[in-house]
Amino acid sequence: MAQIVTIGEVLMRLSTPGFSRFEQARSLNVTYAGGEANVAAALAYWGHSTAHVTRFPDSPIGRAAAQYLHFHGVDISSILYGGPRMAVYFLETGAAMRGSQIVYDRAGSSFATIDPAELNWDEILKDAKWFHWAGITPALSQEAADACLQGIQAARQRGITVSGDIFYRSNLWKYGKGPADVLPLLTAGTDVVIANAENIRDIFGIESVGFQDACIKLQQAFPQVSRVVDTKRTSLSASHNLLRAYLWNGETMLETSDIDINPIIDRVGGGDAFIAGLIHGLMTFDDEQKALEFGVAASALKHTIEGDALISTEAEVEAIRQGETSGRIKR
Amino acid sequence: MAQIVTIGEVLMRLSTPGFSRFEQARSLNVTYAGGEANVAAALAYWGHSTAHVTRFPDSPIGRAAAQYLHFHGVDISSILYGGPRMAVYFLETGAAMRGSQIVYDRAGSSFATIDPAELNWDEILKDAKWFHWAGITPALSQEAADACLQGIQAARQRGITVSGDIFYRSNLWKYGKGPADVLPLLTAGTDVVIANAENIRDIFGIESVGFQDACIKLQQAFPQVSRVVDTKRTSLSASHNLLRAYLWNGETMLETSDIDINPIIDRVGGGDAFIAGLIHGLMTFDDEQKALEFGVAASALKHTIEGDALISTEAEVEAIRQGETSGRIKR
Amino acid sequence: MAQIVTIGEVLMRLSTPGFSRFEQARSLNVTYAGGEANVAAALAYWGHSTAHVTRFPDSPIGRAAAQYLHFHGVDISSILYGGPRMAVYFLETGAAMRGSQIVYDRAGSSFATIDPAELNWDEILKDAKWFHWAGITPALSQEAADACLQGIQAARQRGITVSGDIFYRSNLWKYGKGPADVLPLLTAGTDVVIANAENIRDIFGIESVGFQDACIKLQQAFPQVSRVVDTKRTSLSASHNLLRAYLWNGETMLETSDIDINPIIDRVGGGDAFIAGLIHGLMTFDDEQKALEFGVAASALKHTIEGDALISTEAEVEAIRQGETSGRIKR
Amino acid sequence: MAQIVTIGEVLMRLSTPGFSRFEQARSLNVTYAGGEANVAAALAYWGHSTAHVTRFPDSPIGRAAAQYLHFHGVDISSILYGGPRMAVYFLETGAAMRGSQIVYDRAGSSFATIDPAELNWDEILKDAKWFHWAGITPALSQEAADACLQGIQAARQRGITVSGDIFYRSNLWKYGKGPADVLPLLTAGTDVVIANAENIRDIFGIESVGFQDACIKLQQAFPQVSRVVDTKRTSLSASHNLLRAYLWNGETMLETSDIDINPIIDRVGGGDAFIAGLIHGLMTFDDEQKALEFGVAASALKHTIEGDALISTEAEVEAIRQGETSGRIKR
Amino acid sequence: MAQIVTIGEVLMRLSTPGFSRFEQARSLNVTYAGGEANVAAALAYWGHSTAHVTRFPDSPIGRAAAQYLHFHGVDISSILYGGPRMAVYFLETGAAMRGSQIVYDRAGSSFATIDPAELNWDEILKDAKWFHWAGITPALSQEAADACLQGIQAARQRGITVSGDIFYRSNLWKYGKGPADVLPLLTAGTDVVIANAENIRDIFGIESVGFQDACIKLQQAFPQVSRVVDTKRTSLSASHNLLRAYLWNGETMLETSDIDINPIIDRVGGGDAFIAGLIHGLMTFDDEQKALEFGVAASALKHTIEGDALISTEAEVEAIRQGETSGRIKR
Amino acid sequence: MAQIVTIGEVLMRLSTPGFSRFEQARSLNVTYAGGEANVAAALAYWGHSTAHVTRFPDSPIGRAAAQYLHFHGVDISSILYGGPRMAVYFLETGAAMRGSQIVYDRAGSSFATIDPAELNWDEILKDAKWFHWAGITPALSQEAADACLQGIQAARQRGITVSGDIFYRSNLWKYGKGPADVLPLLTAGTDVVIANAENIRDIFGIESVGFQDACIKLQQAFPQVSRVVDTKRTSLSASHNLLRAYLWNGETMLETSDIDINPIIDRVGGGDAFIAGLIHGLMTFDDEQKALEFGVAASALKHTIEGDALISTEAEVEAIRQGETSGRIKR
Repeated sequence: MAQIVTIGEVLMRLSTPGFSRFEQARSLNVTYAGGEANVAAALAYWGHSTAHVTRFPDSPIGRAAAQYLHFHGVDISSILYGGPRMAVYFLETGAAMRGSQIVYDRAGSSFATIDPAELNWDEILKDAKWFHWAGITPALSQEAADACLQGIQAARQRGITVSGDIFYRSNLWKYGKGPADVLPLLTAGTDVVIANAENIRDIFGIESVGFQDACIKLQQAFPQVSRVVDTKRTSLSASHNLLRAYLWNGETMLETSDIDINPIIDRVGGGDAFIAGLIHGLMTFDDEQKALEFGVAASALKHTIEGDALISTEAEVEAIRQGETSGRIKR
Repeated sequence: MAQIVTIGEVLMRLSTPGFSRFEQARSLNVTYAGGEANVAAALAYWGHSTAHVTRFPDSPIGRAAAQYLHFHGVDISSILYGGPRMAVYFLETGAAMRGSQIVYDRAGSSFATIDPAELNWDEILKDAKWFHWAGITPALSQEAADACLQGIQAARQRGITVSGDIFYRSNLWKYGKGPADVLPLLTAGTDVVIANAENIRDIFGIESVGFQDACIKLQQAFPQVSRVVDTKRTSLSASHNLLRAYLWNGETMLETSDIDINPIIDRVGGGDAFIAGLIHGLMTFDDEQKALEFGVAASALKHTIEGDALISTEAEVEAIRQGETSGRIKR
Repeated sequence: MAQIVTIGEVLMRLSTPGFSRFEQARSLNVTYAGGEANVAAALAYWGHSTAHVTRFPDSPIGRAAAQYLHFHGVDISSILYGGPRMAVYFLETGAAMRGSQIVYDRAGSSFATIDPAELNWDEILKDAKWFHWAGITPALSQEAADACLQGIQAARQRGITVSGDIFYRSNLWKYGKGPADVLPLLTAGTDVVIANAENIRDIFGIESVGFQDACIKLQQAFPQVSRVVDTKRTSLSASHNLLRAYLWNGETMLETSDIDINPIIDRVGGGDAFIAGLIHGLMTFDDEQKALEFGVAASALKHTIEGDALISTEAEVEAIRQGETSGRIKR
Repeated sequence: MAQIVTIGEVLMRLSTPGFSRFEQARSLNVTYAGGEANVAAALAYWGHSTAHVTRFPDSPIGRAAAQYLHFHGVDISSILYGGPRMAVYFLETGAAMRGSQIVYDRAGSSFATIDPAELNWDEILKDAKWFHWAGITPALSQEAADACLQGIQAARQRGITVSGDIFYRSNLWKYGKGPADVLPLLTAGTDVVIANAENIRDIFGIESVGFQDACIKLQQAFPQVSRVVDTKRTSLSASHNLLRAYLWNGETMLETSDIDINPIIDRVGGGDAFIAGLIHGLMTFDDEQKALEFGVAASALKHTIEGDALISTEAEVEAIRQGETSGRIKR
Repeated sequence: MAQIVTIGEVLMRLSTPGFSRFEQARSLNVTYAGGEANVAAALAYWGHSTAHVTRFPDSPIGRAAAQYLHFHGVDISSILYGGPRMAVYFLETGAAMRGSQIVYDRAGSSFATIDPAELNWDEILKDAKWFHWAGITPALSQEAADACLQGIQAARQRGITVSGDIFYRSNLWKYGKGPADVLPLLTAGTDVVIANAENIRDIFGIESVGFQDACIKLQQAFPQVSRVVDTKRTSLSASHNLLRAYLWNGETMLETSDIDINPIIDRVGGGDAFIAGLIHGLMTFDDEQKALEFGVAASALKHTIEGDALISTEAEVEAIRQGETSGRIKR
Repeated sequence: MAQIVTIGEVLMRLSTPGFSRFEQARSLNVTYAGGEANVAAALAYWGHSTAHVTRFPDSPIGRAAAQYLHFHGVDISSILYGGPRMAVYFLETGAAMRGSQIVYDRAGSSFATIDPAELNWDEILKDAKWFHWAGITPALSQEAADACLQGIQAARQRGITVSGDIFYRSNLWKYGKGPADVLPLLTAGTDVVIANAENIRDIFGIESVGFQDACIKLQQAFPQVSRVVDTKRTSLSASHNLLRAYLWNGETMLETSDIDINPIIDRVGGGDAFIAGLIHGLMTFDDEQKALEFGVAASALKHTIEGDALISTEAEVEAIRQGETSGRIKR
């Protein structure tokens, strides 16, 4: 089984070709993606053994989705099959002052109706060293929240490092609970938290003056948290962004310089590639600054690649991290 | 407003290009279609004023769907907006011994959660002469069944001819009622019924010896029914079918000869095109046999056209009805 | 019938895919567009009832063209059918220092050979509040010029506001008359004139020092003209433009700041979107400055959208007008 | 210069992708083709030096057209540039009982307005052994008819064999003359005539009982004619045809057996490929029967190839001629 | 590790879109395929654990090829990386009387230059129950022949069933040895031989009267061979084939009836799908006749699917085996 | 025969669509290109008669390649056919900080195994005024080096100007010789050398301080060399470059200003377009500075065009040379 395990919903991504609007598109490009699975995919391309935990309908569409993760090199043997439907999202790619647009159709998905009891954590985590979750999962349904919590606790018990992308979309959380009801328990079992000061305030009610203050207070509330990480994006247009990142390790605040991304080919999944790069760095390098920079480089590179997942070699990311951004032809 | 009004769910149709399997497709062709809307579209191409009643999510996807019906020439001013989601169906086109495959994802659609009270039948039926419904609508939800019944009764009161395609899929009907609970009331208000002997038995419990016997007994049970119509398809392969039709008018059984369809370009919507052709014939010709033949010709022609809807002129169908099937180039 | 009526030739637009040159293209993308119809389409997407007056050949190509306008939401019931052919234009999209290239093939089109007597202005203008024409129409043929003049005069009589895009291409006007012969009479019936100082000098022989002086003198010559509007485009490259606009209302000269457009996805139709935005603003807002800014925002947004027509919601344009040009993802 | 010279209009061919109807197509495939140029192209692929005489607009579109003929291997050094426009035809490909549909837009083309004085026949025919024309050319305009006649007479004077495809479309001939006014003089200079009994009656007023009788009477009227050739197509559907051919050599009537074509990929240009095959056979083989069969084989093969032109090797056609129609994979 | 192991070259397959000829294609569809890998892929789709042994260049192209096998579900952990290049084959798809055409460019591939010593058979065959090879591998190079022989002998030692597709292309075998030098030793270790009487004569010099006689004599020469299998294809055209199969089990000759395939979507890989179906049947069913029929059904189904590999469920094949070839829509 | 003759390998170029990575591409765009053939193509578009000397396999792929050069207007009558295979290169187009990536598969190509004795230089150079070669050719094989040397010497004897692009890739030169063994003799016969100081040092061992010093010393070593030319590219990203050029004519160092290229559509072939522009300028203008600027303008324009070859008119390049880089629409 895999060394890195991720959990989360995977959606069919249906994107308009080129820069077409939804009204114009007579065909849609199709891949299968989800924030946590994107992390697993990027890490698999760099040579890690990764597995993703999710649930798909037992249909040709569900099988095609699993097969797509396998194409990315992700172990799919822990995926459950059953339930009503595949989650879907529609993407229209913007340019210049027109932002990209996403329409979700994820309610009642097979993952949201997962039965946590079907997950065999002993098997899933047998060889795991890292477990990753995100705040969208507990927002989907009680079942998804339970599955996520189970995974975190099972990882905790086995001494596996846990990372969590504690971002929440207010338009989810429709099953009767809110982030404040659920996220504290999940965060309590997490070592590396990806969040900004606004998330920390909105979710945990922790008021702060600046990111470092928020990190310190978060650690006070959740002693297990050893690192808090955030990215800062300057959006000049849909085609031109700047990106940097911060990492609080309990003692000092590390930061990177801005990286310039112009033009952006596909903005979606940029945050997931950052997390993948960060996890790779923290697992592989003995240098947090380098890990943080690797995350930013991975994220920047993702913006030049179609689809949610970062398809790259480690060497490609490392070259960008070292400042080789001239884009010369490689022969 | 329109002379012909149809009601029913419209789905986003996502079909694999060429003969690709779901696993292979990296893009999907997208149109918007539904059995009853297909009828309205075909009739609009022949010059009828037609309107479709349905409900779409208030999103870019919902607006794109409505716009697609408008592209077909169908009046969209009675469409409601709201509710959770667009119904979707996935289509993989077969060939030779491999049949086409459809995966539905329609549960909880905006149409299934329609509020019948929002429909203003006075406005919708102001200029109507024909109202068409199908057995799938009452199978979706109580709300959809109610909307359908309202429409039938409103049409009845205004002396509008009502046709119903009383076909049912056993894997629908999940809201607590079955066809026997709902369809009798709807059929009671219907003039032209499309059904075969098996449907009549399964839905109404009417046992019969052959189609004519079933028709006679159906009319005994539902005196409003003046005509019962059915098609018979001989499927030699996914690429080669024969098609014929029968019409019982209460007195005699009319039938057509087989029409040979080879190769089939797109099988879906063939039944809807038949109904459109039949309605056109019954409204326009003073000749039931000719109307029935026009329906079969329309259906055959549909099999050569991509998408659910029959895009054609009346003259094209009429030429086929008259036996001009040599497929010579028109200049 | 529609509240906003436009008149003009609609051409089949055949554009090379991506950035292909004509020599390279083995397929061409096809839509149907024309300056005035583009105005009607953009306004229809913002919820206005609009109708376009033109003439198409009575062929599958002509019907496809009309259907395309219907797809955009434009009323097509006033379109005439007949005459020899569809006007066509070929488009090759440039980038960087290579400008886009247009080859017209419009001579002898069905619109250019329109019979003005076939147009029933009572019917066409029944509900109209605004009528829009452009200087290309009278340049095509005597018949087109007559139809345009009829429309302006019929609008004038009914108290309908008239706008005219008085731009002229010197390579048209091949039927024996020149702009100075025809445009004064048309301009005399026009309330809102889109033109720059060069147009005003070349067409009417009005010499001026700067745009404001030209506006004042134009109003002296044509007292019906209440507003004169112009845009100023700074073309840094085929992929990067700046755009601003000016409006003289008889008293003050309003102007907008530059909006930065980079990259440009499709430059064609940018001027038409400006006019649509301006008309929308003048009809809807009680604020000329806001109307002018809305026009510029609409034009800028058009540059990010494939095809001649601006497909957008009013809210999207308004957000850009208010300076939200960061292009962030909308979810 | 070339050994085989053809003359005629070349049109931009815009065909809908797959089996799309005109209304559905959002892109059109583009090639450049014309009956006589198709003959030259097929012969070039078999190793003949061929040149085509025509006239294109002096525009990127005209240059792209010439370049496309060069792609086929046809000498383009005799092509004239100038005049108003490129002729165009639109093609919708049918299947089963739905025939393909062609819409022409060729009036006023650069070829139709050719100035025959610009053609330097000494140069064009310097190395020629065969000259080919078709009945569409004199139907387009007086200028085109004159150019065609000049070419025939110049060929006659130089002892070059002349073939003519005397088919006429009644919907051409709009410049004041009819086929009976023009075609006799052209036919008088022609050695090999492609025509059927109906053509011979309609054009020359020669009544006959069957094809052989028509041939005999045609030769009596036009002593230069040494061979009369015709094909017979049995159109079972747009996807399935049978094809055979007849050749009268003044003494005996040769004929081929039917060749079965199923499915048809692209029907257009099938007749031109037959003529190319016949010319190749008559120039290369010492066996009229074999030449006729080669023509039929070439025509059949063309039906399996996209576009108007037969792209093939001589060996491929010869194998079909010899009955190798099993379609086994060649490795 | 996998239960079924295959060995052989995998080629980049570059096929023209639709029915385009090589000259016409401006894009080529790309997959990665090889006879033995196709067998592994088909079996993986039916739920078997399969692994393929081959060698790819250590380049993005080589990695893309491996990833494509992983997409099919095949274990790629035994693939070696290194050597000069990826083997390639170009495919042009025929129709009607025009056969498909394949051009190979495989000389000097990374697989042909494999170092057999790098293969760890203990690891590769750890869980294997079946090993499959084909006659193309020993034809490529001494190294490939050695690797193949090693695999057969390693399988033999472990009691693993071995199947071999003893077909040879005379235009391979360029490294100094011929089939008679190499194939006997490989065949000696093989249980299930796929071959026809011509192969058996040409390779082993065994003259026979009919297939059964050849089988008997082959078994006399190679006592390990327990079954000899062959298919018989009747090629009516490139679009229409009949297919049947024979199996000699040492005692009786089993055979299937013809299955009709019309139209053929993609002919390539049909033989490999047969072998996959046969292996599945022999491993799973206790019924040789059913296994043989399953092979023919799998092969027939492959002809309807784009690409070399049969992508299907076991149920789909089984339905065809049972005669359900009507191609009705599955919902 | 042609006035400008080029020699060199032509490769099948297989490029991923859009910005896809190799792993993602399910189709590849295909053209045929090579540095020297690109020079011939660009010059042919400007009206020069050009011919290319190379060798292709005698297969449909080889014929398709020749036909593609013919499409560009290049004379292909001197191309040899035979040998093992077509050289191929795979291209993945980058953007922003991700550079494009090229994978070559050219070993053992038909050109690399050319027999120089088959080349008839009397015929090839009959009408030639300019002969162009590049440093890649002698790097491929002894045969290719010999063919190149023969061509240079044959040109020298006939007083034809010779240009050589003395760039070398260290990963070629695998046949036992190095650049220092071969290039001096080739350079000795060359008038116009394209090289930079690093090339001059690495190939000839000429150490220098700056480009001018290198030029002077190169001329001392090779008196035939009258001009040395180089370009300087500033790569800000894969999408944004600056380009300028230098020409040493033995007396003064000419240089151009930077031209800004943003965005880059296709970077490959930019250097070849520069050489084509330079040759055109030196042959046509009596102004070396203008020739150098024309080269830079041609190169810049190439970056906006898909494919290796610059498809343009002379007027388009000249407008850019004169500073018209605003990219306005041409109508």
